[in-house]
Amino acid sequence: MHSVYSQLSALCTLRSVATDIVMSFSFEVIHKSKETGARLGKMHTAHGSVDTPSFIPVGTQATVKSLTPEELCGLGVQIILANTYHLFLRPGHDVISKLGGLHKFMHWDGPILTDSGGYQVFSLSKLRKISDEGVTFQSHLDGSTHLLTPEKAMEIQEALGSDIMMCLDECTPYPATHTESQKSLELSIDWARRCKESCNTERDALFGIVQGGMFHDLRAHGVEAVTDIGFDGYAIGGLSVGEPTELMFGVSASTLPLLPDSVPRYVMGVGTPEDLVELVSLGADMFDCVIPTRNARNGQLFVRTGTINICNARYRADPEPIEAGCPCYTCREYSRAYLRHLFMAKELLAYRLNTTHNIYFFVSLMKEMRNAIRQERFAQFKKDFYSQRTG
Amino acid sequence: MHSVYSQLSALCTLRSVATDIVMSFSFEVIHKSKETGARLGKMHTAHGSVDTPSFIPVGTQATVKSLTPEELCGLGVQIILANTYHLFLRPGHDVISKLGGLHKFMHWDGPILTDSGGYQVFSLSKLRKISDEGVTFQSHLDGSTHLLTPEKAMEIQEALGSDIMMCLDECTPYPATHTESQKSLELSIDWARRCKESCNTERDALFGIVQGGMFHDLRAHGVEAVTDIGFDGYAIGGLSVGEPTELMFGVSASTLPLLPDSVPRYVMGVGTPEDLVELVSLGADMFDCVIPTRNARNGQLFVRTGTINICNARYRADPEPIEAGCPCYTCREYSRAYLRHLFMAKELLAYRLNTTHNIYFFVSLMKEMRNAIRQERFAQFKKDFYSQRTG
Repeated sequence: MHSVYSQLSALCTLRSVATDIVMSFSFEVIHKSKETGARLGKMHTAHGSVDTPSFIPVGTQATVKSLTPEELCGLGVQIILANTYHLFLRPGHDVISKLGGLHKFMHWDGPILTDSGGYQVFSLSKLRKISDEGVTFQSHLDGSTHLLTPEKAMEIQEALGSDIMMCLDECTPYPATHTESQKSLELSIDWARRCKESCNTERDALFGIVQGGMFHDLRAHGVEAVTDIGFDGYAIGGLSVGEPTELMFGVSASTLPLLPDSVPRYVMGVGTPEDLVELVSLGADMFDCVIPTRNARNGQLFVRTGTINICNARYRADPEPIEAGCPCYTCREYSRAYLRHLFMAKELLAYRLNTTHNIYFFVSLMKEMRNAIRQERFAQFKKDFYSQRTG
Repeated sequence: MHSVYSQLSALCTLRSVATDIVMSFSFEVIHKSKETGARLGKMHTAHGSVDTPSFIPVGTQATVKSLTPEELCGLGVQIILANTYHLFLRPGHDVISKLGGLHKFMHWDGPILTDSGGYQVFSLSKLRKISDEGVTFQSHLDGSTHLLTPEKAMEIQEALGSDIMMCLDECTPYPATHTESQKSLELSIDWARRCKESCNTERDALFGIVQGGMFHDLRAHGVEAVTDIGFDGYAIGGLSVGEPTELMFGVSASTLPLLPDSVPRYVMGVGTPEDLVELVSLGADMFDCVIPTRNARNGQLFVRTGTINICNARYRADPEPIEAGCPCYTCREYSRAYLRHLFMAKELLAYRLNTTHNIYFFVSLMKEMRNAIRQERFAQFKKDFYSQRTG
């Protein structure tokens, strides 16, 4: 039973320090699909390369919940996301910086993308108050008051040692009127400018974020303003905030083509396997989402046909793996019956094994998409993908 | 960072099916300490061998909380304990049996010791009623009523496919009068006889349990009666139930020498590192306890000098490992600061990393004791051990 880890290790492409030192962030487009907007690319960072389209697992508090860095690497994960808001409040970016930065702190030597903290300020904290200067908020942990400004967001991310930093923005809620969305967008544009001005890194990347709510004209204006400032990559923010899926696809379809071709395009907070396939088809390169990890902890497991819920009584004595043929550690070694038992008994191992499978599913889906783009058969891949989905 | 798992794998002594098939359980005493009662031995089971003195991590619900079997093996664990009471109630021994037994179910192919379920019936269940036939109890999970008899305890453990089964007994509470302890002991003796009579295995081991409360005369009577029935090994039960440590050592000191020399002697539910050293010195061969795993999940970590509590504010920015020089995965790759952060943030990885270290500590302590016995320096080892303990 011990071949598993050596196999995982063998799968890992260790960052070779000798051959992979990069002086600054860069991105190359390797192939563009002729039939769709999909594209194959590669990002280079000081901590290694990332093949795109890429799915970025979320490591909120300097850990992708339940897994070790070695396991992530073994699953094919090339980059993770960490949350500035959470790490600023606990243990503090000063502590992490003193300990040698986030990579060393959490023992992950691959690329790290950090968000700006803005999203969590708006979704988690209490009594937030926005001014032109920034946003004053109370910690959801202890009620302490803090001011997050564009300059502070840069300072924190730099102290963490992020490879890809994000501008502070206001995530426009849904629904919002045109006027509200415009006001919010202008604030984000102003903050983006200040982030760019205060960012001191030459080596790492800073991405701009396009807001604009569900309004195509605002999104177009957002793209123009943010690309005018000029960043190493661009994200579409303010999606996956409760709007209908069609609206999310609509905004993405109209916004993605406006973004420069030569840098990565990142759709934040997305999504389901269907979302990923659709948005890759529209030309998106990067995604982050808690779906594979959070749903794993809730017992929802991803399979070719859709999802299964492991707590279902039908799995009580089911000797089959989550998905026949899946080569992940969980599917190789454990039955649905055992996974159901662990989950019903609230055993810690349940969360690990479920997370392992779900991350493998997402990472493999991205790899399959990359192969399909490379081999100029992405349109067919998409058809096949949907034909398997039954629920 | 990926060398760790290959190192762990290399440490694992995989059970070699070709060379290690045993027809029935056996035990050999390899060396007896001249200055103390300590002894070095080896148990052979159908699922591999166990070097004694041995510490048995507790895998209550068919999982040693938070760890995989590969990790346990990598930490040097040779045998685990599973709880009959828990597995009988959920998922049911019928389910596990149908799926090929506990080893296959939980993906652990080393030896498994199962308790009889008696201890949990008395400590966890509601409305238990003891008769000569057995004990009627209500499940702590759903209130359903069940009857556990000696015959049923054997049936369940055989269905699980246990390598070392334990007789059903009544764990005499502390304090108990001589009369109460005697009555309880007689019941356990009667049940031991019935377990022996109904046990169908030829391949696996059945251990008898000596009760008798804190009374030396009852313990002596217990030994006589249980050895008269005849088992593959003997356990001292009813210790570590709230009595002062000196009383536990006293009963052990008077009871252990009465047990046959040729079979394993198992002190159930013990203990701290100090307990283990003391009881090995008195001639005990096996121990099981939730201390390393449960305390890990509460943030208490074992070190040479005693314990540290990782939530202590002094570790907030501490770059040192739990214990300098400890070769466990946790100590090799993570700082106290990171472990404290994970623990304060209630991150799942905290429980894994803490458990990894604590199990390594216990397993290594046993290994050091075995080496000391082998090299006829156990008395010195014991002195050195205590001289390091400062709290």
